[in-house]
Amino acid sequence: MRATTIYGERDIRVEDRPKPTIQNPTDAILKVVAACVCGSDLWFYRGINAIEEPHAMGHEYVGVIEELGSEVTGLAVGQFVVGSFITSDNTCEICIAGFQSKCVHRTGVETAQAEYVLIPNASGTLVATSEYPDEDLIPSLLTASDVLGTGWFAAVAAEVGPGKTVAVVGDGAVGLLGILAARELGAERIIAFSRNPERQALAREFGATDIVEERGADGVAKVKELTDGLGAHSVIEAVGTQESMLQAMRSTRPGGHMGFVGVSHGVEIPGYELFSSVIHLLGGPAPVRRFLPDLIERIMRREINPGRVFDLELPLEQAAEGYAAMDERRAIKTLLRP
Amino acid sequence: MRATTIYGERDIRVEDRPKPTIQNPTDAILKVVAACVCGSDLWFYRGINAIEEPHAMGHEYVGVIEELGSEVTGLAVGQFVVGSFITSDNTCEICIAGFQSKCVHRTGVETAQAEYVLIPNASGTLVATSEYPDEDLIPSLLTASDVLGTGWFAAVAAEVGPGKTVAVVGDGAVGLLGILAARELGAERIIAFSRNPERQALAREFGATDIVEERGADGVAKVKELTDGLGAHSVIEAVGTQESMLQAMRSTRPGGHMGFVGVSHGVEIPGYELFSSVIHLLGGPAPVRRFLPDLIERIMRREINPGRVFDLELPLEQAAEGYAAMDERRAIKTLLRP
Repeated sequence: MRATTIYGERDIRVEDRPKPTIQNPTDAILKVVAACVCGSDLWFYRGINAIEEPHAMGHEYVGVIEELGSEVTGLAVGQFVVGSFITSDNTCEICIAGFQSKCVHRTGVETAQAEYVLIPNASGTLVATSEYPDEDLIPSLLTASDVLGTGWFAAVAAEVGPGKTVAVVGDGAVGLLGILAARELGAERIIAFSRNPERQALAREFGATDIVEERGADGVAKVKELTDGLGAHSVIEAVGTQESMLQAMRSTRPGGHMGFVGVSHGVEIPGYELFSSVIHLLGGPAPVRRFLPDLIERIMRREINPGRVFDLELPLEQAAEGYAAMDERRAIKTLLRP
Repeated sequence: MRATTIYGERDIRVEDRPKPTIQNPTDAILKVVAACVCGSDLWFYRGINAIEEPHAMGHEYVGVIEELGSEVTGLAVGQFVVGSFITSDNTCEICIAGFQSKCVHRTGVETAQAEYVLIPNASGTLVATSEYPDEDLIPSLLTASDVLGTGWFAAVAAEVGPGKTVAVVGDGAVGLLGILAARELGAERIIAFSRNPERQALAREFGATDIVEERGADGVAKVKELTDGLGAHSVIEAVGTQESMLQAMRSTRPGGHMGFVGVSHGVEIPGYELFSSVIHLLGGPAPVRRFLPDLIERIMRREINPGRVFDLELPLEQAAEGYAAMDERRAIKTLLRP
């Protein structure tokens, strides 16, 4: 089969690899219908995460079940499924508490930009749609696999709800879908940090009520100005740098909640400042599985259209161009079709 | 009047100062019935917090209302009151949300180890007892002013509740009262980190079910061993050092809650580790005012006896010895009687 491999900084190749086979009785093999490039893939692409040796890429996927291990329950060959970027048994204590991304049996999915992908813990990871979805829903369903689920988790972690003012740091796909999640969860006011006109437009389409172009201390001052000097009730952090984390912390009012989902790179949170802030913090790899049934339903009912974050669609063979376009910020997010 | 002043490292003196007078119509003057030395006072005493010039000490107090400003409501001269170490209007948006320690009109109390103390924001800060308390209840009521309120906040921030396993880092008065709070809030199992036999005994009296003498990685391993490898649901941090913060973080299970109330000194929280942990964090100066009415009631009904943390009681004149005893860990906590 054809599969995407990273060989080094800015060196993405699509090449032949063996089609995966069932390794454990709890595995599934999917024929990938769509995959995509994640903002976190760019950490490798840009050489910030070390590439020890060439490895496969891709952890966001929707597909059709091709084969199931003997112990998989609740799923059938031929079903269209969405899964999380981290697999989970969905039965351990941690999963039951809603933190499937930290399941005691979790595995990462790392080979989804390919024609077929092996999914361990299939019963606890994959959620089937009620029927094969209309073609135009596939991009939205694909977002549920990671980027929508992650933005949604950030909004839930930030305790977004009716009457709340929400600030969103990061105008990438996760930040934009954090805005959509905030709107769906009933936020009264949604402040988006963005300097990019196209992203500002999508932010507004997803529900942003205010755009702040300033960053750092100036951006924080603007949020304070919009919130009677108090800061936002709920802040979503979707970048992962020291600057963005501090901007998010400082935009949160005392007693407020910050949900951070940008993968931390070189972040050190100053303890005394956090102590003095008296804000709630929750973040990390999103337990997407918790939200999948609800998100799939919202998409199938056409209540939300998160697939709008894909502004570039390419055949799998052109994965390298998909990465380059995102790296150069020519595209928000690239969908790949095997 | 007589008042406690710090002149430098390990230099505490009790000397004459002018009796305070009403400065604003929202002030109250209390005749102090009892005050005490806080673990956080030791940061000055040990010279870790710089002492720019001699200043008064003390932020924990119970007393009788001596005089009220013209705009104070809900209080009367002669009432016995307990107040928080941070004053608050208890009417702003932040207070209403339960975070009075970050009230927009907050002030610190810094002169309570004295015969009289001025309390700004009196209406929003002081809570009167239903009657003048029995003498033996005074130490317990005094703890509500800070150390019990802080331990209680830590337990609430750590979302302690029925069925939960709680771990408590720090066997000072706050940690010990965090144990008491955890028991009152219904925790199933309470693991106390302590190496000191007297403190272990008090921890057990307050509700600890397990004692762990190991620290750092060994301490964390012990908590994991006691919790099926997962970590505690709720962790209370009551020290404020880098080591104690990491020990607390690493003792918390994924999806669990950590309440940290030790005043951070030199702490840097590693962002990627926090991200990977997927734990809830909330800490800072405790909004004691939120809990005061409930805590006072529990004490007046003799349901709890937090005053047990005072193992040394001295006349105000001997404040210096009170500090020395705590510094040298000869005493857990010193009560001072003007």
